[in-house]
Amino acid sequence: MPPLADEEMTGAESLLRTLVAAGVDTCFANPGTSEMQFVAALDRVTGMRPVPCLFEGVATGAADGYVRMSGRPAATLLHLGPGLANGLSNLHNARRALSPIVNVVGEHALSHRQFDPPLTSDIEGFARPVSAFVRTAQDVGELGRDAAQAVAAARSTPGVATLIVPADVGWSKGGKVAAPMHAVPPRGVDPARIAAAASALKSAKRPALLMSGRALLRAPLELAGRIAAATGARLYCDFLAPRLERGAGLVPVRRLSYFGEQVLEELKGTDLLVLIEADPPVAFFAYPGKPSELVPPGTLALQLARRTDDGVSVLAALADLVGSGGEVPRQALARPELPKGALTPSSAGAVITALLPENCIVVDESVTAGLALVPMLQGAAPHDWLAQTGGSLGLGLPMSAGASLACPGRKTICLTGDGSAMYTVQALWTLARERLDVVTLVFSNRAYAILNYELQRLGAPAGPAAAGLLGLARPELRFTDLARGMGVEASRVETAEAFASELRSALATPGPRVIELALG
Amino acid sequence: MPPLADEEMTGAESLLRTLVAAGVDTCFANPGTSEMQFVAALDRVTGMRPVPCLFEGVATGAADGYVRMSGRPAATLLHLGPGLANGLSNLHNARRALSPIVNVVGEHALSHRQFDPPLTSDIEGFARPVSAFVRTAQDVGELGRDAAQAVAAARSTPGVATLIVPADVGWSKGGKVAAPMHAVPPRGVDPARIAAAASALKSAKRPALLMSGRALLRAPLELAGRIAAATGARLYCDFLAPRLERGAGLVPVRRLSYFGEQVLEELKGTDLLVLIEADPPVAFFAYPGKPSELVPPGTLALQLARRTDDGVSVLAALADLVGSGGEVPRQALARPELPKGALTPSSAGAVITALLPENCIVVDESVTAGLALVPMLQGAAPHDWLAQTGGSLGLGLPMSAGASLACPGRKTICLTGDGSAMYTVQALWTLARERLDVVTLVFSNRAYAILNYELQRLGAPAGPAAAGLLGLARPELRFTDLARGMGVEASRVETAEAFASELRSALATPGPRVIELALG
Repeated sequence: MPPLADEEMTGAESLLRTLVAAGVDTCFANPGTSEMQFVAALDRVTGMRPVPCLFEGVATGAADGYVRMSGRPAATLLHLGPGLANGLSNLHNARRALSPIVNVVGEHALSHRQFDPPLTSDIEGFARPVSAFVRTAQDVGELGRDAAQAVAAARSTPGVATLIVPADVGWSKGGKVAAPMHAVPPRGVDPARIAAAASALKSAKRPALLMSGRALLRAPLELAGRIAAATGARLYCDFLAPRLERGAGLVPVRRLSYFGEQVLEELKGTDLLVLIEADPPVAFFAYPGKPSELVPPGTLALQLARRTDDGVSVLAALADLVGSGGEVPRQALARPELPKGALTPSSAGAVITALLPENCIVVDESVTAGLALVPMLQGAAPHDWLAQTGGSLGLGLPMSAGASLACPGRKTICLTGDGSAMYTVQALWTLARERLDVVTLVFSNRAYAILNYELQRLGAPAGPAAAGLLGLARPELRFTDLARGMGVEASRVETAEAFASELRSALATPGPRVIELALG
Repeated sequence: MPPLADEEMTGAESLLRTLVAAGVDTCFANPGTSEMQFVAALDRVTGMRPVPCLFEGVATGAADGYVRMSGRPAATLLHLGPGLANGLSNLHNARRALSPIVNVVGEHALSHRQFDPPLTSDIEGFARPVSAFVRTAQDVGELGRDAAQAVAAARSTPGVATLIVPADVGWSKGGKVAAPMHAVPPRGVDPARIAAAASALKSAKRPALLMSGRALLRAPLELAGRIAAATGARLYCDFLAPRLERGAGLVPVRRLSYFGEQVLEELKGTDLLVLIEADPPVAFFAYPGKPSELVPPGTLALQLARRTDDGVSVLAALADLVGSGGEVPRQALARPELPKGALTPSSAGAVITALLPENCIVVDESVTAGLALVPMLQGAAPHDWLAQTGGSLGLGLPMSAGASLACPGRKTICLTGDGSAMYTVQALWTLARERLDVVTLVFSNRAYAILNYELQRLGAPAGPAAAGLLGLARPELRFTDLARGMGVEASRVETAEAFASELRSALATPGPRVIELALG
């Protein structure tokens, strides 16, 4: 245990030691001058691993991946308002994933800010839309406590906590390490409500569970499988789920579709939809004349556990109440033949499904290709699947870095579109820098392809201006070059056979690797 | 002139036509589903050039460059809160440059937002810290007027205006084009105050002018030169200035230094410092025991024109009042010999100074290398020099794209550090896509080198953790590969001779080009 108070300790050091004491061991960092006292303190504090990132959106997305796979909060270190601003998009995704992240953001010294130097901005204003906790530290003696409260807030919500630290608060002596503080656990649900839901499930003709959040890990899925066996309930998960354990041998859940009319079709005939750590399904976007709410008119939607409630204990209680009966559904292994010829989302999906190693982590930002590809992986070897949660592109590559850091013994496979990869392409450098065991598959369709669908759905013809804005073919992006430029070995494939061969080689070799799939 | 009202016109089309009528002809875009009605409308509206960007920070930085060189507002088209968030860092820089930019940000349909779909966020909250005008449109019939007011606000402040447009407001019929609205011109300064300042300048022993903003263009610099001739005043500009016309034949101004103690040294002995569109100098960052305010104790600082005032007419009045006398200072041409051997910031600076073509645009985000290099360019052929204004890195490459688009007949030269280039490296694709005449010089010192100075200034030793966070050498970034991956021709040089040869070739060939300078 480090000393709890030391007249010689800087505020920065007290903050780092407090984070470590609270179980935060990794800090994704892109510091500047106003954070140099934290950089210096890292050399005096053991137990905190700094991970350099060349762009702040990499830091925040990696923190989210680390949190999702470790189950513990992660920290970021960001430079003033603009540094935080660069990380906001992935903090939006983290907020939607309920991922506990503690941002440490430098600020001008309290004595300096009044002069409005160029980098001055409203940092609290930037932080508020994504943060459940925002505080600007005022006193070096309180900074440890501020940090402990930030961690507790991040764990309690769970969500994003932003602690803004003026440079002089960080560099002054008189820091005090604070002990970890109590985090509010997820709220339990009234047993009477659970009992009523159990009765409703048993009497429903065609019930279903829609789950998200913590309910999608292996153990709660077993509980859901028992409920399905006893009641005939079908099991669904959100289109965007923070983490799903799936694959052969696990209890399978069907992911709701992206497009609203497909969701309505999927849920058609369901008389009771019990929501566990999930909200009633809504359309991702609105379209003229199409519905926003995706609960069919004849379906009763019952939100038994809200997203922040303890859905796992709800499932356990439900499973006991509905009793046993029938067989728990299990996903069969479905290893497709290795396809030959044209490289399409489907043939690529068959290759990945066939070769996916057991216990790997699949990070998914494959967008258009994913519509065909992701359902196929259901029958692959068991794996963790991490999805987009807030819909803001640029999460995939950074999240892979964070997930891999959290699980050093496991292979991570990142599925990304070409358009989506470009938002935070700097993550490749961090993969190389930390020698992370991540295979990145870039599905190159040379367009923001999903937007061509969306334009059609709006009923608008795609003229030359629209085509110009949605196309990525002029010039073509070469991810092999981009990867090599950041120190990552890379190759490009144009057939299913070549892809199978490259993927096999990448899976057999530790370390970062990029495969660009030139889709036909 | 387009029709001013049309029952068949969508809100999106009325917005675009209103922007065009108000003189906005370029839109830097990274749209998503909620902006498809704008994408569709671009094919029905003439006079608006859409420029695709692969990351929103490229769009906002390019808009700033376009504004600085064209003198007219530019637009961006961004996808919901996260899209805006990705652009905030360069909007911070634009706010500090007083650059009029109109952000058009899509929002969920008014009918849809209540369901809190995944991409919902507090867009106004994201916008406020950087925007002088924030509005969420509510009615299709008012959208044209909203747009005209946004342009007027951007011009009046001048600064950033953010207009948030719910998808259904954009896609509904009933749009009305609005006529341009009055923008408030820069405030004039009371003639009595100017007369008092003129007297003070004449009686001062060692006066100086510190200028920024519009005062740094050729014509007002001539006026400043006349004042200098008559009063002996030295001429300074801010370390960070939005646009400076300089080089051989122009009235030279000395740029204040980055480090505060150097500024105090530079201004030492000045009894009167007259500020024209500039604030009293302050340190970029605070350091323990070092001053924030950089006006020496014996200096009277007189802010005659604030940053938003009309400093040009103040200079004209001052020049008339102080009368003629002495010779207007002129920068002599200083074309150095082409150096040989090691590639250092100084030898690179000599090469650039010797070869710089007349009337080019120099965009500067060279950070550490720039400390030695930028002062040398003072004696080069006349050129425009665009600097960082808000201190947030990642402006250089995007600003080059925007400046080049605004001035198609002129060569643009972008000076960037390796660290700074990585924040918005996706700009290279837009350079290739639009075939822009930009030569990008990447000064590769394989570190956040400026931060090593800053760490020393804090009095902290650089241990291994600090060195790990500030170094970019493991792995090395290869900008030749990164550039080729985005369709830009590139080369890497390791000696001054090789650099001279590559730069000569790049200057002789139109189109985008990257030269990576491996500094010794």
